[in-house]
Amino acid sequence: VTVEHSIAFLGPEGTFTAEAATLAAPEAKRCPQTTIGEVFAAVRDGTVGLGVVPIENMIEGSVNATLDELAFGPRGAYIRGEVLVPISMSLLVRPGVELDAITTVRSHPHALAQCREWIADHLPGVDLEAATSTAEAARAVSEEEDTGRHTAAIGPEVAGRRYGLSSLLTDIHDRSGNLTRFAVLGRSMHPATGADKTSVVVFFGEDRPGLLLRILDELALRGINLTKIESRPTKTTLGEYCILMDCDAHPTEARLAEALRSVHRHVAEIRVLGAYPRADQVAVSPPATDTDAAHADAAGWYRGILGDIEA
Amino acid sequence: VTVEHSIAFLGPEGTFTAEAATLAAPEAKRCPQTTIGEVFAAVRDGTVGLGVVPIENMIEGSVNATLDELAFGPRGAYIRGEVLVPISMSLLVRPGVELDAITTVRSHPHALAQCREWIADHLPGVDLEAATSTAEAARAVSEEEDTGRHTAAIGPEVAGRRYGLSSLLTDIHDRSGNLTRFAVLGRSMHPATGADKTSVVVFFGEDRPGLLLRILDELALRGINLTKIESRPTKTTLGEYCILMDCDAHPTEARLAEALRSVHRHVAEIRVLGAYPRADQVAVSPPATDTDAAHADAAGWYRGILGDIEA
Amino acid sequence: VTVEHSIAFLGPEGTFTAEAATLAAPEAKRCPQTTIGEVFAAVRDGTVGLGVVPIENMIEGSVNATLDELAFGPRGAYIRGEVLVPISMSLLVRPGVELDAITTVRSHPHALAQCREWIADHLPGVDLEAATSTAEAARAVSEEEDTGRHTAAIGPEVAGRRYGLSSLLTDIHDRSGNLTRFAVLGRSMHPATGADKTSVVVFFGEDRPGLLLRILDELALRGINLTKIESRPTKTTLGEYCILMDCDAHPTEARLAEALRSVHRHVAEIRVLGAYPRADQVAVSPPATDTDAAHADAAGWYRGILGDIEA
Amino acid sequence: VTVEHSIAFLGPEGTFTAEAATLAAPEAKRCPQTTIGEVFAAVRDGTVGLGVVPIENMIEGSVNATLDELAFGPRGAYIRGEVLVPISMSLLVRPGVELDAITTVRSHPHALAQCREWIADHLPGVDLEAATSTAEAARAVSEEEDTGRHTAAIGPEVAGRRYGLSSLLTDIHDRSGNLTRFAVLGRSMHPATGADKTSVVVFFGEDRPGLLLRILDELALRGINLTKIESRPTKTTLGEYCILMDCDAHPTEARLAEALRSVHRHVAEIRVLGAYPRADQVAVSPPATDTDAAHADAAGWYRGILGDIEA
Repeated sequence: VTVEHSIAFLGPEGTFTAEAATLAAPEAKRCPQTTIGEVFAAVRDGTVGLGVVPIENMIEGSVNATLDELAFGPRGAYIRGEVLVPISMSLLVRPGVELDAITTVRSHPHALAQCREWIADHLPGVDLEAATSTAEAARAVSEEEDTGRHTAAIGPEVAGRRYGLSSLLTDIHDRSGNLTRFAVLGRSMHPATGADKTSVVVFFGEDRPGLLLRILDELALRGINLTKIESRPTKTTLGEYCILMDCDAHPTEARLAEALRSVHRHVAEIRVLGAYPRADQVAVSPPATDTDAAHADAAGWYRGILGDIEA
Repeated sequence: VTVEHSIAFLGPEGTFTAEAATLAAPEAKRCPQTTIGEVFAAVRDGTVGLGVVPIENMIEGSVNATLDELAFGPRGAYIRGEVLVPISMSLLVRPGVELDAITTVRSHPHALAQCREWIADHLPGVDLEAATSTAEAARAVSEEEDTGRHTAAIGPEVAGRRYGLSSLLTDIHDRSGNLTRFAVLGRSMHPATGADKTSVVVFFGEDRPGLLLRILDELALRGINLTKIESRPTKTTLGEYCILMDCDAHPTEARLAEALRSVHRHVAEIRVLGAYPRADQVAVSPPATDTDAAHADAAGWYRGILGDIEA
Repeated sequence: VTVEHSIAFLGPEGTFTAEAATLAAPEAKRCPQTTIGEVFAAVRDGTVGLGVVPIENMIEGSVNATLDELAFGPRGAYIRGEVLVPISMSLLVRPGVELDAITTVRSHPHALAQCREWIADHLPGVDLEAATSTAEAARAVSEEEDTGRHTAAIGPEVAGRRYGLSSLLTDIHDRSGNLTRFAVLGRSMHPATGADKTSVVVFFGEDRPGLLLRILDELALRGINLTKIESRPTKTTLGEYCILMDCDAHPTEARLAEALRSVHRHVAEIRVLGAYPRADQVAVSPPATDTDAAHADAAGWYRGILGDIEA
Repeated sequence: VTVEHSIAFLGPEGTFTAEAATLAAPEAKRCPQTTIGEVFAAVRDGTVGLGVVPIENMIEGSVNATLDELAFGPRGAYIRGEVLVPISMSLLVRPGVELDAITTVRSHPHALAQCREWIADHLPGVDLEAATSTAEAARAVSEEEDTGRHTAAIGPEVAGRRYGLSSLLTDIHDRSGNLTRFAVLGRSMHPATGADKTSVVVFFGEDRPGLLLRILDELALRGINLTKIESRPTKTTLGEYCILMDCDAHPTEARLAEALRSVHRHVAEIRVLGAYPRADQVAVSPPATDTDAAHADAAGWYRGILGDIEA
């Protein structure tokens, strides 16, 4: 197994992230890490060829640790893919434990939050305990001593199977259709496919009113659709933010190339965080005025103008 | 003590939020709540006159539970004040415990994150345990049985005092100057003071490219400075967001009134989340073209035009 | 015949302007004037109820004297109607004169310009003489002494009839479909009809780059279509211009009201030059976001916001 | 004398245009033409190296014949210089004629317009006659038969000298400081000097609302100042215009190159009409974000991005 066929991910096995890693590279050697930062580090230092981290959940929103690694971490790890995983929560118990014997529920706070209404309806009054991951909650339940007081874990069924637990009930999350988006990391960006996204982060430097408006204008003028915009504190002064943006275009397209160069001239810093095929594989066509052909045509016209200027 | 002189806050006592509640209403009757949602509920149903919740930390960013209550919760609770509290972390232990006897550190995950480098340097290899608040961590430490293995809490000194712990070391957070911003909630917004902020949330409805650009343009055209922009998932479809914005103006100013009405006409929904004096009390002057006087002057001129149209 | 039933126009009778005056007010008492300035003056001082002046030809462009009276003249005369007249040129001669006997062609320079190619083809080498109007040219031809050298006038057939000339050839203008637009002046603007135009002139004052862009943005943001934009020198410094604009809306519409007030706040001066039904009577519907109903709805929503601000 | 050292201009000698031709090329062989179109034709077909035509007067505005040749004429003649000439009018009479013997005043209509108030005050009731140029008026006066009724010409003193007339009174124009701007034409554009202007004409094709706004935005985003904007009818449909614009930049600057290419992609047609040093020689500096160096820096940064995309 070569390095290029190794994949780091936010472990342990038995989590939704582990499932995303399987989808991203089914046959790669698996290298679970204990923090998001370690996944980034393994990609950057070449220990692995790919990494997988959660970036955004449909209910909870962005995963700040991932955004901060992208925006503030060292260079060397780009987003080069995205994977969507449906989030389905089960109530995981040691075999034989019944619902009315459960006095405590343990899981990652996001998972607890996603089942809050279900717990209030079906397990009123239970104690809630936080765990660092849904798999870790399952592991802890599997090791619980038998005191007559039982703890249930909340997490994916696969976590239960991994630790010998039973799925007492499935699909206990409050909102159906929940998805988490995972970023696949690598040391280079993905080539253009015709159905691409590009992620960037922009630092404004001095607080220039109107600079965000300008950036959105630079994109809009070239028919580039913004699919996500997110702010993160720069961590130096309360009220200073950097802006992370995803857009429907690839950096090798003339229109995004021109937009990126324009933004570069006006901001303190712009970093391209990645370029990758859209998970939904829906092709994105530029408007007729902003195809590569239209840009090439305009460049040819302009060269003709230059030819009529006295040398 | 009347209802109006009661203040709900995210408890327990001994947290930074409790400190913010003291700053917001030093003499009010204190009503600690166990979740952010309960603080909002107490304000909405009239149990208390004011509420205090954390809204944003300089390092960690926004507090999603607060944003989601503002954006998606029932009406009836407005932001009517903001309070800034410096965040200073101490290492809290039972009296007599020395640094080299500590095997476990317990705190709210945000607090652990803010001291990550310090812990790695000074307590390498300790176990980290999550608690639901810094004060809860201190309480747990104070109740720990003496087994020779010691747990330290990380939190504000006031939490240590409350539970009989010693501050073994202070200012152990990795970055100095850290601040948390708290929202003061009430059933009405604050009148204009000349140094005001207004918070809104905007739902775009159908995905209309360019609508965010337009909203920023509506503000910029009237000289209204945007101090914060944040997106949150609408929780119905991955990739759909609402946008929360803070700006430097009060809804009773003509320029913001006009901007709000314009945005209202173009979006699926806009909610004003609050109007309140800036914590820094720095007065904000509109540009000469957008003062209330300029708006009144333009309105008078326009009435003259109407007078020259045949009835 | 009352003053209100008198119409001044740029005379003499027998011109296209005289024809426009007939279309504008078929039964009014006719008061031909010798200059565009006199037509404006007659309207302003109440000598007549209406005035008619040419404002724009499809080939020649704007009539500067009319634009300058509107932009720089005293107040008191508004555009309250527009009339379109097809421009058809005839070769007018004294009865009996043949084409090959013509040695000179006389007309208003605009009329000569509009028949330039025809003259070059059919009367190569003739002398061209300028007259102050097409009717004046016809009058001069009618008074010509018979020297064997014949002058032809170019103008509308009606001019020929008026002065006893024959139309030797008709439709001799080089481009078919030519139209002239005439402004109908009055002391008040026309009420809204649902198919309206409004004309304004804007003076920028100090040369502020971006101010024109801003004005166009104020209109575009409210879905107001600009049908014409024209610059005229302010006559004080070379390179300083005012901008005349026509748009598809009426000042009593909420969207144009708001746009006018906004522009008023930013420029040195804005004058509304008139409001009038479109000659083509094509109704103009605002976008759903900018109807009067949408504006009223937004205003109602905003009043609700005010009600939640502490008094 | 080579072709390159010949200059065509709108003649005859003795006009302000003749003066401009002297300023543009003092030692060139002079080739007066009788129409603006002939000057353009002489440049295009290589009969002369340079041409001079009036383009704009501070009082009267644009010279439509020049704009139309630029916008609609065949290619091959570019603006490559501009010359400003102060306009000073004199009353020119045959030697010995006194003011109170004058019964008629003859000149180009623009010149009559510029002295309208003076004539009304000093020669009330005189007849006004149009001539094709101020010099032609002087020539006609010089050839007038002596009938006791005297005609005066209005024009530059040089026209009087040329035809043996006396300047009875000088500086009789109503507004002081009047200037006319002349275009110097050639078969190539002028190289960049650091104090340059570029003229373009834009045809929108289908009537696209917002396209003018977009073009102004493309310029403004790159810090390019618009010094003149003018509309001309396209002569095919009433209400369709092309837009002529002058801006403070040279086509070889990266910022204007990018703006021109962007506009090219969105409009039916854009023609560069010329590039030339500003008559006032005032240097124009781009904003720091739009210098050629900033563009080169952004291009270098972008090439680095490309290097991190998998081949």
